[in-house]
Amino acid sequence: MPSSRHRVLILGGGFGGLAAARGLRRADVDVTLVDAENFHLFQPLLYQVAIGGLAPADIAAPLRWVLRKQRNARVLLGRATGIDPAARTVEIQTEPGPKTLEYDSLIVAAGARNHYFGKDEWAAHAPALKTIADATEMRRRILGAFEAAELETDPERLRALSTFVVVGGGPTGVELAGAISELSRQTLPSDFRSFNPASSKVVLLEGGPRLLAGYDEGLSAKAKAMLEDLGVDVRLGTFVTDIQADHVAFKSAAGEETLDTHTVLWGAGVAASPLGRELAEHANATLDRQGRVEVDAHLALAAHPEIRVVGDLAHTKGPAGQPLPGVAPVALQQGKYVAKDIARDLRSEPRRPFRYRDKGNLATVGRSRAVAEVGRLRTAGFFAWLLWLGVHLAFLVGFANRFIVLFKWALAYLTFSRGSRLILPPVERGEPAEPTEPTEPAASKAQAPRTGT
Amino acid sequence: MPSSRHRVLILGGGFGGLAAARGLRRADVDVTLVDAENFHLFQPLLYQVAIGGLAPADIAAPLRWVLRKQRNARVLLGRATGIDPAARTVEIQTEPGPKTLEYDSLIVAAGARNHYFGKDEWAAHAPALKTIADATEMRRRILGAFEAAELETDPERLRALSTFVVVGGGPTGVELAGAISELSRQTLPSDFRSFNPASSKVVLLEGGPRLLAGYDEGLSAKAKAMLEDLGVDVRLGTFVTDIQADHVAFKSAAGEETLDTHTVLWGAGVAASPLGRELAEHANATLDRQGRVEVDAHLALAAHPEIRVVGDLAHTKGPAGQPLPGVAPVALQQGKYVAKDIARDLRSEPRRPFRYRDKGNLATVGRSRAVAEVGRLRTAGFFAWLLWLGVHLAFLVGFANRFIVLFKWALAYLTFSRGSRLILPPVERGEPAEPTEPTEPAASKAQAPRTGT
Repeated sequence: MPSSRHRVLILGGGFGGLAAARGLRRADVDVTLVDAENFHLFQPLLYQVAIGGLAPADIAAPLRWVLRKQRNARVLLGRATGIDPAARTVEIQTEPGPKTLEYDSLIVAAGARNHYFGKDEWAAHAPALKTIADATEMRRRILGAFEAAELETDPERLRALSTFVVVGGGPTGVELAGAISELSRQTLPSDFRSFNPASSKVVLLEGGPRLLAGYDEGLSAKAKAMLEDLGVDVRLGTFVTDIQADHVAFKSAAGEETLDTHTVLWGAGVAASPLGRELAEHANATLDRQGRVEVDAHLALAAHPEIRVVGDLAHTKGPAGQPLPGVAPVALQQGKYVAKDIARDLRSEPRRPFRYRDKGNLATVGRSRAVAEVGRLRTAGFFAWLLWLGVHLAFLVGFANRFIVLFKWALAYLTFSRGSRLILPPVERGEPAEPTEPTEPAASKAQAPRTGT
Repeated sequence: MPSSRHRVLILGGGFGGLAAARGLRRADVDVTLVDAENFHLFQPLLYQVAIGGLAPADIAAPLRWVLRKQRNARVLLGRATGIDPAARTVEIQTEPGPKTLEYDSLIVAAGARNHYFGKDEWAAHAPALKTIADATEMRRRILGAFEAAELETDPERLRALSTFVVVGGGPTGVELAGAISELSRQTLPSDFRSFNPASSKVVLLEGGPRLLAGYDEGLSAKAKAMLEDLGVDVRLGTFVTDIQADHVAFKSAAGEETLDTHTVLWGAGVAASPLGRELAEHANATLDRQGRVEVDAHLALAAHPEIRVVGDLAHTKGPAGQPLPGVAPVALQQGKYVAKDIARDLRSEPRRPFRYRDKGNLATVGRSRAVAEVGRLRTAGFFAWLLWLGVHLAFLVGFANRFIVLFKWALAYLTFSRGSRLILPPVERGEPAEPTEPTEPAASKAQAPRTGT
């Protein structure tokens, strides 16, 4: 595709990168979107894949399909490994081999990945939830524990098999804990003969003083009450100190405790993509403690205004100076913004600063249970849940996905069943976990380890 | 579940095993169904998962869910490895460890698996289509080849990447070849920028003199014409002699030929489950050349009338003495039959012989194209395709699955799109391929190798 047009290279097809690509559809540019996966993933619903409510394809859309009508955009399947701001090139690893791509504008939207605060050995026993492979692995473990429990005759081992521990009280942890509790109490009881899934124990561990740290305090308390109503044992001010194949150890003001379990799920921390370090090394970027890239009011690097960073990899601040959370609405707005700002550059109009419009927070706890804060409204319960449903359906990419998800939800609501309960074989996991120094989680302040204290 | 009731143990939750379990729902027995997977798979639509038209969960139903209301049945997740007819026990391998199950009646419905006629090394380069993992692996290779082609600049490598070879002209091979051709010509063209998927080459290799060997000859010819109309290069009387990562070699009356390709798909042969050999060793069963178990008119072993074999693992004959093919309707009817016959045994009524009722054959070639033989009717085209659609939807287990598949098909028909085009990471494959002697395929006489001739 030789061209003398302005070349925009976008690294990452998540909310930020895809919004940037689509935002440039009418601009006189050539857009290249690079992602290691061939699909855009609607991460806010990934936990539903993990608990068997939805299938991976329901919440993913092929990037090529999304951009098929946008003739100025092309998609390349590959993993960006090196950025050379002086030469304005990016090195990507593709199936046929390494490739070097040139750019005039670079948008780095590489997101975040699972992070275990320097305890990488925990990853083997406590899968997290960032990719489709993560979600099917979590599903394999959750449903596999119920299957093993059905075969178990020793009461102690049975108790361990039917104990589920979720680490981290942010939205992901809250959603997972609520959903597993519902699965065990509503969906599965009639499926098993030797053991009663409703006798399962679900424990949610949160290091901070409340769930959903970024939310209104009243809503945090309501989410906790709703989870407890579903049978979840919520432990606040509790820090994990060790995770092994058959138990988890944690610590609170009340002392140390060990719980026998075969299923620990990690919803606690994420770290910024290692491309941040590339920018620090080669483009003079400054990283914050979570490895996120500090950007100016245009989401650009001070030393390289042609390089923009959006989404979970960017360290940005809201109107009140508070750091913006690593959530989809922030990435979406930033992606749209940089597309517009690049178009302004090309028309030689002045850049305008990025302004985040906080549209509120939504988290679901279970069937008919959610919490919502929208503008000045604070609400918990059925109405919040309807709002959660509507917003998630509206933002899901693709008409077919929306329709199928709606149908599955309606069916699950009416029958308590969950249709995607396949236990699939383990997959070869992607790149190995980054060997990083212990840092605090980027997405929530939920769970910091206090090992050795 | 201690009980003095008659214990029926069923090995395998495919069409035969599941039909047997459901057929016993009103009998005064305790049913235990053992399967290595937690779901029943609707194999006739597996090729649609391989080409991205359906998601795995669309064509699979959790066995526990299917049997949740049948209080006399329980499901155990495990793999049967040993049968001891003298002790009337079966050894199964489960996640928590080996278990020994006792039975009064045993139904072996362990089916068939992929088979490469003694050329096990071909498996690495030519995935077959028996399990969900097979289908997602096939999808990964097909879609991955298009992705690599988009990045390729060398014309020869590009030609190899966009060449797809399907081995075997039975229903699976015909369906795969037609679907890949449609994918490349109808679904994908607007998705790619550097290369045109419509320029892809699809080759179907069949050893016999015609496609769909078991069908009416006129329909075989029509299927061939329909495939050619879709752009498929159909080669009859052609035997594969070698398969490597970057080429396939084959031989026909016209001589030997080598074709550069990175995507060879195996639809040629299956072999009976190794449990057949267990029965041969310990229960005096006789195996046919394909490893299938010879059974009497009650689908039982001569030496052990309490052991029945159904489905692909059983060698049975139709009314005219012809061997019954390894297809779903045969397994379904046999499963239902043994359930009834066991119930007759328990009521001390005389056993009645199994009678197969041939309800016809259906194979689809593509959109609006199929062939059907039902009773004396022979038809090819749109009506046959509607029939194929209706029959497959009617037999798909679960209301939700049926509805979702119908919706996805309607959408694909209207828009040519296919929604489940995720390239997922490779999975750890199940048990290794059985080291078997070269035998002829059990399911079709399609493709026998003639190496060294």
